Parts: sequence; C-alpha cells; structure tokens
Amino acid sequence: MNDVDFQSLLDEIHEQVRPLVGKGTVAGYIPELASIDPGQFGMALVTPQGQVATTGSAEKAFSIQSIAKVFTLTLAMRHVGNDLWRRVGREPSGTAFNSLVQLEHENGIPRNPFINAGALVVSDVLLSCDKDPVQSLLEFVRLQSGNPELSYDQKVASSEAGAGHRNRAMAHFLKSFDNLENDADAVLEIYFRHCSLAMSCLEVARCGLYLANGGRDPVSGQAVTTPSQTKYINSLLLTCGTYDAVGDFAYRVGLPGKSGVGGGILAVMPGRLSLCVWSPGLNKSGNSLAGTEALDLFTARSGISIF
Amino acid sequence: MNDVDFQSLLDEIHEQVRPLVGKGTVAGYIPELASIDPGQFGMALVTPQGQVATTGSAEKAFSIQSIAKVFTLTLAMRHVGNDLWRRVGREPSGTAFNSLVQLEHENGIPRNPFINAGALVVSDVLLSCDKDPVQSLLEFVRLQSGNPELSYDQKVASSEAGAGHRNRAMAHFLKSFDNLENDADAVLEIYFRHCSLAMSCLEVARCGLYLANGGRDPVSGQAVTTPSQTKYINSLLLTCGTYDAVGDFAYRVGLPGKSGVGGGILAVMPGRLSLCVWSPGLNKSGNSLAGTEALDLFTARSGISIF
Amino acid sequence: MNDVDFQSLLDEIHEQVRPLVGKGTVAGYIPELASIDPGQFGMALVTPQGQVATTGSAEKAFSIQSIAKVFTLTLAMRHVGNDLWRRVGREPSGTAFNSLVQLEHENGIPRNPFINAGALVVSDVLLSCDKDPVQSLLEFVRLQSGNPELSYDQKVASSEAGAGHRNRAMAHFLKSFDNLENDADAVLEIYFRHCSLAMSCLEVARCGLYLANGGRDPVSGQAVTTPSQTKYINSLLLTCGTYDAVGDFAYRVGLPGKSGVGGGILAVMPGRLSLCVWSPGLNKSGNSLAGTEALDLFTARSGISIF
Amino acid sequence: MNDVDFQSLLDEIHEQVRPLVGKGTVAGYIPELASIDPGQFGMALVTPQGQVATTGSAEKAFSIQSIAKVFTLTLAMRHVGNDLWRRVGREPSGTAFNSLVQLEHENGIPRNPFINAGALVVSDVLLSCDKDPVQSLLEFVRLQSGNPELSYDQKVASSEAGAGHRNRAMAHFLKSFDNLENDADAVLEIYFRHCSLAMSCLEVARCGLYLANGGRDPVSGQAVTTPSQTKYINSLLLTCGTYDAVGDFAYRVGLPGKSGVGGGILAVMPGRLSLCVWSPGLNKSGNSLAGTEALDLFTARSGISIF
Repeated sequence: MNDVDFQSLLDEIHEQVRPLVGKGTVAGYIPELASIDPGQFGMALVTPQGQVATTGSAEKAFSIQSIAKVFTLTLAMRHVGNDLWRRVGREPSGTAFNSLVQLEHENGIPRNPFINAGALVVSDVLLSCDKDPVQSLLEFVRLQSGNPELSYDQKVASSEAGAGHRNRAMAHFLKSFDNLENDADAVLEIYFRHCSLAMSCLEVARCGLYLANGGRDPVSGQAVTTPSQTKYINSLLLTCGTYDAVGDFAYRVGLPGKSGVGGGILAVMPGRLSLCVWSPGLNKSGNSLAGTEALDLFTARSGISIF
Repeated sequence: MNDVDFQSLLDEIHEQVRPLVGKGTVAGYIPELASIDPGQFGMALVTPQGQVATTGSAEKAFSIQSIAKVFTLTLAMRHVGNDLWRRVGREPSGTAFNSLVQLEHENGIPRNPFINAGALVVSDVLLSCDKDPVQSLLEFVRLQSGNPELSYDQKVASSEAGAGHRNRAMAHFLKSFDNLENDADAVLEIYFRHCSLAMSCLEVARCGLYLANGGRDPVSGQAVTTPSQTKYINSLLLTCGTYDAVGDFAYRVGLPGKSGVGGGILAVMPGRLSLCVWSPGLNKSGNSLAGTEALDLFTARSGISIF
Repeated sequence: MNDVDFQSLLDEIHEQVRPLVGKGTVAGYIPELASIDPGQFGMALVTPQGQVATTGSAEKAFSIQSIAKVFTLTLAMRHVGNDLWRRVGREPSGTAFNSLVQLEHENGIPRNPFINAGALVVSDVLLSCDKDPVQSLLEFVRLQSGNPELSYDQKVASSEAGAGHRNRAMAHFLKSFDNLENDADAVLEIYFRHCSLAMSCLEVARCGLYLANGGRDPVSGQAVTTPSQTKYINSLLLTCGTYDAVGDFAYRVGLPGKSGVGGGILAVMPGRLSLCVWSPGLNKSGNSLAGTEALDLFTARSGISIF
Repeated sequence: MNDVDFQSLLDEIHEQVRPLVGKGTVAGYIPELASIDPGQFGMALVTPQGQVATTGSAEKAFSIQSIAKVFTLTLAMRHVGNDLWRRVGREPSGTAFNSLVQLEHENGIPRNPFINAGALVVSDVLLSCDKDPVQSLLEFVRLQSGNPELSYDQKVASSEAGAGHRNRAMAHFLKSFDNLENDADAVLEIYFRHCSLAMSCLEVARCGLYLANGGRDPVSGQAVTTPSQTKYINSLLLTCGTYDAVGDFAYRVGLPGKSGVGGGILAVMPGRLSLCVWSPGLNKSGNSLAGTEALDLFTARSGISIF
C-alpha cells in the first residue's frame, strides 16, 4: 500500500472518468447552482505527512453545500460534546435528506447530524454557544485550509434563503417539537450561510485532514478534535454521510465521506489521507456521479479502504 | 319524528351530560384557550322553519377555531368552484389533523379541506380571490348569524400566531410543493385570524343553517351555496369533519359535523335542522367530550340521523 | 321524492352509462375474475314496500367479492356485538385496502371491518363462534335473497386461495399480533370462500334490504339487526365501504355503499331502498367505473341522498 | 498496535463487563431462547496468523440466530454474484429488522440482506441454486470452524417454525411481490433451520476469519470469497449488521459486525482479526448488552477500529 503513486493514480482516474463528467443532473433547486457548467472535474489528496496530489480543476472554488455539515458538527462537538446526542440521533435515516416524515414519527429528534433537520439543530447549538457562528466557521475553514481569503458566496446564500421553503418548513417543525432554542428564522439564516461556503477540492481536502490524523491538524500540531471524537465523526460519515446512498457508497467506495449537492465529496482514510473530488453532475441519490466513480476507482486501484 | 319537543330534549340532554362537563382536556397549545374554564356547556338548535331551542350557555361566545373551516370552504367554493379539488383532496386523512407525513407522501396535496394543511390552501385561495379575506369572513358570519357585532378575538389570534410553529411548518411545506400561490406568512396570518372567530352556539347554529336547507338561507331566502355544493359540503363534513375520529363520530352521532379545539361542534341534519354544542373539555381525538356525548344522546333520543 | 318512477330512471341511467360499460380495468389478480367479459352492466332496486326495478343483466350472477364483508360483519355483530370493536377499528383507513403498513403501526388492529385485514378478523370471530361459517353465510344470503340455490363459485374460491399471497401475509401478520384466535390457514380458507359468493344484482339488493329498513327483513318481518346495529353498519359503509375512495363516493353518490372487485356495488338509502349495480370494469380506486357513475346519476336524478 | 496482548485484554474485559452480564432482556419470542440462563458470557478472538484468545464460556454452543445471515449471504454471493442485488438492496433500513412497512413502500425489495425479509430472499436464492441448502450451510460452517460435529438445534428450529408468524407474513408478502421463486413455506423451512445453528464463540470467530483475511481461509489457504466480495460483505456488516442500531454500533465499536437475538455478535477487523462475543441479555435494539459493551471496550483499549 505504501508505495502508491498518488499523482499518477489521480491523473489516471481523471482520464477514466472523463466520459462521465457532465453526465447526471446539476442541483436545480437554487438558480445559482442550476446555472453551473456541469463539465467540470477536480480532485485533490493530502496526507498528514504533507504529500499533495491534484488533478483537474482541483483549485477552483465550488459551493461545498452539505460538506459544511462536517465542520459545523466538529464545532458543535467542541462546544457541547456528547450533550449533542440528546437532541440529534446517530443512525442512518433510510429516507431522503430533507424528509419530514421521520421527524414527525420520532418527535422532532433528527436521525443524524448530516440530514438537513440534524444540521439545523447543529446550527441552533452553535447559535446558542457562539456570538457569531457565521464568522466562526469561516475562521475554522480558513485556518484548516491555510487560505485566509476563503469566504461565503453571497449570491448562493441569498438564493438558498429565497428558495429554501422546505428547510423553512423543517426549522418551524423542529421548533414545534421544542428542538430549537433560538428563533427559527435566525437558525435558518446561519444554516443557509454555512452551506454557501465556496472552497476548492484542495482546500476541502486540507480542511478535513484532521479526520485522517486522529483529530490533530498536522500543520499546526493542534488538536481539532479528540481521538475519540475523530473516530465518532468518521463513523457518522460512513453510516450517514451520503444521503440515502450510504450503503451503496460504503459498498463501492469503502471510506467515510460527505457529499454536497454542489457536486463535492470529502472522503477520509483514517490514519492515511484526506481526499476531495468535485464534479457538478449528480446521480439520482444526489451524490456527484463522476465524483463517486472517481472515489470507487481510487479505492479499487489503491487498495485503500477501511474494509 | 316530526313531533320531537326540541326544547325538552335539549334540557334533558343538558341534565344528563352534566357529569361529563369539565371532564377531558382543554386545548393547551395556546395560552388563551388553555386558561378557559372547562366547566361550561351550551347547546343550540335552529330549523329552517324558525324553530329555536337552547340550553346552558348557548349564547356565550367561544373560540370556534376549526369550525371556521366550514365557512371558509364555503367562501372558497363560491370563488373557484370545483377548481379547488385540483389543490385539495376529498378523502378522510386517517391521520392527525396536523400531520405532515401524508403531505410529503402525496406531494403537497392535502387530503381534505378540514385538516390544517387543506385549510391553509383554502386560505390561500381566498387570499388570491379576495382583497380582504379577513373582513369577508366576518361579513359572512355576521350576515348568516344575524349578529352584526360578531368579531375576531385579537388575543386568541396573536396567541395562535406566536405558538403556531407546526402550522408555520405546514405552510412552508405547502409552499415547497408549489401549493401556495401567496407568501406563506401572509396565508398564515389569515388562517390564524379566521380560527380566532368568537361566536356563541346559537350564532354558529344559525350560521350553518343553509347546510340544512339545500344551501338557502331561510331568513333572507338567498342561496349561500347551490344544492349540489351543499350536498358536497355535508358529505365532506361526514367523512372528514371530526379529525381522526370521523368513523367513530359517524357511528355514534350519525350527522355531518365539524368540531374545533375550542370545544364547539356544528352538526347538521340535511333538510331538517342545524345544531351547535359547546363544552371546552376535549376527548383524546380532540373533539368536545361532553359535546360528542350530547350529540350522541340527541340522535339516539330523537331518532334523527342520516343513517 | 315519493313519486320517482324507479323503472324509468334505471332504464335511463342504463342508457346513459352505456359508453362507460367496458371501460376501466377488470380485476386481474385472479384468473377467474380476469377472464370476465367487461362489457356487462346490471342494476336492481328494491324497497321495503316490495317495489322492484331492474335494468340490464340484473339477474345474472357475478362474484360479489368484498360485498360479502357486509354480511359477514352482520353475522359477527349478531354473535359478539360490540365486543368486536376491541379487535377491529371503525375509522376509514386512508390507505389501500390490502396495506400492511397501518396494521404494523397500529399493532395489529385493523382500521375497520371492510379492509381485508379487518374482514379476516371478522372471519376469525365467525370461526370461533360458529361450527360452519361457510355454510352459515350461505344460509343467510339464501334466506335474505329468497333464492335457496345461491352458492359459492368453487373456481373463484380456489383461484383466490392459490393467488392470495398478500392475504396470506396479512393473516400471518394478524396472528403475530395475537389478533387471530384460530389458525391462519383456517381463517383464510373461510375468507376466500366468503368472497367467492356468486349472486345477481337483484339478489344482492334484496339481501341488503334490512339495512334500508331499520334492520328488519320486510318479507319475513324478522329482525336481522337491531335498529342501532343497522345505523352502525350504514355509518361504517359510508365512512369505510369503498376502499380509499370513500370521500369521493360520499361526495358523488352520497349513500352508504360497499363495493367489490368483481364490479358490484351495494348501496342503501336508509328508510327508503336498497340498490345494487354491477359492471366489471373498475376505476383506479377499485370500484366499478360504470357502476359508480350509475349511482351518481341515480342520486342526482332522484334527489335521493343522505346529505 | 501490534503488541496488544489479546489474552490479557479479553480477561480484563470479561472482568469489567461482569456487572452487565445477566442484565438486559433475553429474546422471548421462542420458548427455547426465552428459557436460557442470562448470566453467561464468552468471547473469542482469532487472527489469520493463528493467534487465539478466549475468555469465559467461549467454547459453549449458543443459538447463533441472525449471525447465520453472514454465512448464507456468502454462499448466495458465490452462487449468483451481483445478480443478488436485483432482488435485495444494500442500504440500512432505518427501521426494525422485522418491519413490513418498508417492504410495502419499496415493492417487495428488502433494504438489505441482513434484515429478515432480505435473508428470506437469500434463502430463496440458495433453494433455487442448491439441492440441499440446509446441508450446505452445515458443511460450510463445519469446514470454516474446523468442527465437523457442528449441527442445528432441532428444538430451536421447531420452536421458530411454530412461533414465526411474522416471518411467515413476510415470506408471503415477498411472494405477493414475486420476489420469491420458491414456495413460501419451503423458503421458511430453510430460513428457520439456518437460524437454529448452534455454535460457540470460538467456532463463530473461526468461521468469520475469511472476512478478516481478504476472503481467504488462512487454514486451508482456499478463497471463500473474492477480495472485492469480502470488502462488500464487510461494508454491509457495518452499515446493516446490527439492526436499527448500526449507527450506534459503528460509533461505539467501529467494526463491521453482525448480531443475533441469541446474544452473539461476530465482529471483524479487516486484515487483522475475527472476534465473537456472546451473552444472552439484549439491549433495547436487540443486540447483546454485555457483548456490545465488551466490543466497545475492546476497540477503545486496543485502538483497533476501522475509523
């Protein structure tokens, strides 16, 4: 395993997924995402030892959308630790990421922090603990990625706020179960902003590197999360990170991962590496079509997998 | 049947339900309703021929809540006729009146106009057709009841607006399915106001008399609804008017009826009479406990029933 | 109302529904029903006073299927009275007649006696109370219809038994909730036989006449059901008798009724008449397409309706 | 990691879980399991290199129940390969292992091969491909465990067959969706027999060793499964192996695993070791209470985890 030439592998994968790039459906629910050119692809890999490999548009910023949920969960766990689990579950949902059905059947406790309802509760936790959770996430990703210029895409944020009727429904529904401490609109505002982070594959991979390194940022040497929190986040990524395709993703890719409807996927091999792929066309589960294929090829060729 | 002495019957019923008055649970979701004295009871009956019988606090105003849905449906049917059924179903829901589950499974088409989601669509229809739907309903009930002083209870309306997180969730959910034409908050505002009408048993019974008279107001002689609309509304009352207890209500009472969480129930014997009973304590289906019993006794004793 | 010429009305209706006869889909789940000629239509009406009107193939036997559930319910109520309601509900199901979902959510208590699960419990009740429930139903319908030759269609019964995997699933599911006292296979055997009764429109209408006559068979003068049982059965027919189209049926037809997938519908105007229509083509709710239209026309033209 | 002293670790864990042994609830649905002494505990670990460590009653046979699903899946994948996935999904169910709800909503395709419905389809596949699937599983576990005396517990098998109404319901339901090729009763017979295998912790751990060794039996050197099949089975274990507690199990234990209601759990660290723990008392998710705790301690102390 140790002598995989990551750069060659990424280039080879890029070559091979080319026919799939542009296939699938671009997320259509907000205008800013719908108008993106689907024919794009990028991939970046970093290791705790400082190795870097990239291919395609690995340095082009895209809308990370739900990948932000990994980082907001990290921040919330640092604030409230395991108290979080009194308000959010840790089980795969088995239904669509934006379903209200389960929430109703389970009295307003979202199944896990990666479905929208769970991420809204996480946003509410942050809002209760932090004066400016929008700024705090920005500082976190700037620090981890090493890019102090990172920022939100204002157009995407307003686009979301204007079109997010279902997320609004969910926030008010959570409120009706007393599972939001703050005003629903205030929580939504933060949630929409967090989703609108614009980052490149390389920045996302760097940002997730602590998850491949026992919780420690290899650059600064600082602990981002404790070893057991790190293990917990990785297990949640595996069982809940890719919408209602977690089984398929675990089966094909075999790595903890989190996808976003912007077409990005962050994947982590604990102890080994952090990886981000991006291509806007989505498969019917809402995960990047070419991106999932690229990760499948990556684990098949490299033999790197947790299984 | 013709020689029933309604006044004696109502007095007798009042006597008999006395032990139940004050039993059950007062609706607790808004402070204004929660603080009501549960030990109250009133009943009023009117016929197209002008007969009137009352017992108990039949002239005391109470919050009619969902009974207003009968009158808003009437107004909406006058505006758009059968076009309404493209946006709302006509089937019993089989689930709680405020459930979002069915709405998700059925793509945002509420099962019927008497569950909250359906009534929100009705409010949206009114808002699209009518400059001031809040005023219009007021004029309608003032005219039908003969009381030009009838009005909304402002405290109840603001109480609802403040506590109605679930209704807010529902409105945004409908909007996410494109089944609201207007802004969700504007629709909610109307909906909450309509629910806050304060009327007495006698006024409600008078107001519903057109449903017992082929659609014609016997006082003015004016047609409120066409004969077939009248029949339609009555059938909807029977199959959908009493939350998830329609089967039980049909079984025990055997009359088309609509209940509200304020403890009122409007019931109609087509061709014969209109009846309203009120007592704030609710049974576990959310219908007035003493009120349901009173109606059960009424049909059992009088032999008046559609079955 | 009193001077309706029923014979002319039925003939007129027959003429008018002719274009619909043969439309819709014949029930396909068992070969014996699937092979029937869809282009058939019959209708029969009887009154307690002895009036009879028929049109089309009103004397041709067809497979009454779920209409038998009215008569088995009647027999079970005579055996155990209101004890039945400890094991079966009285609410419309809001879902398909053969759904197992609700049964799971509601711990094995079927919503009402007219969905398959509820009828299986009714069969179980009969099997516990009666040595030969197959023979007993036969005697009941022979007596009520006045035709001592009435019998089961053996081909249909075996066809059902061979294809009824879903009903088998339901019976075992009920057993797993301890809501069958007898062996699942024994209950199914009775259930399949009961569904296979072959009767004509005229026989079905005669058989249902006690429901239009306060529970009393007008020919023999015997009470089949008590007045309150009669009222209860009629209310159940209205709220639960036509699968997941009860709201629509109440809206269009406005009479208590029970349909079967053989294309028959029994409808009752309490105090007035009993009516049966038959045409094998079904609409998407599983009710006879031409039959439903015929009943709709009947109530519209005659003004006879409970609403 | 390499210098973990497994024997000491297992003894230490045994000591530590002692207060939990006997807690929880013994599976009550069949008499043979209900009468077991809950105060038992055993644990065994084996490695491809031949290391063995055991503690407690590691050599006492217990009813492996659903752990057999790992081995029947293995056999079915050898017969039909990926064709299996046309009839069974690969996603966590998010609901109880014996729920029929999802099956109805998803047209008879079980979510994964480890819930009962999925395992019934696997049994059906085996019955179609293999003259004697009961004998074949026996030969498989005898070979892998190295114990030629292994056998089914006839009392448990008949107990299951007598009490398995819900499994019977499920088999007939699958048949109604045409997702069983063979007779439902024949499939159930095999299914019940497979569940009744009696094995010890040591035998189960040995039997699962190929999953920790890239699919190859380290003793014989024979390939049981291909490397990619092995990876697939492990990913399915992680996402679907522990009923509706997969998220919690991944979070706490962090190893692919399969539990049975007999109180056993098989867990695998790919490339490293196979492990089986047994204690009859179950937690509310149906997994061994002391067993889950023992595995949690094992991964926490040893640092062995896929995350």
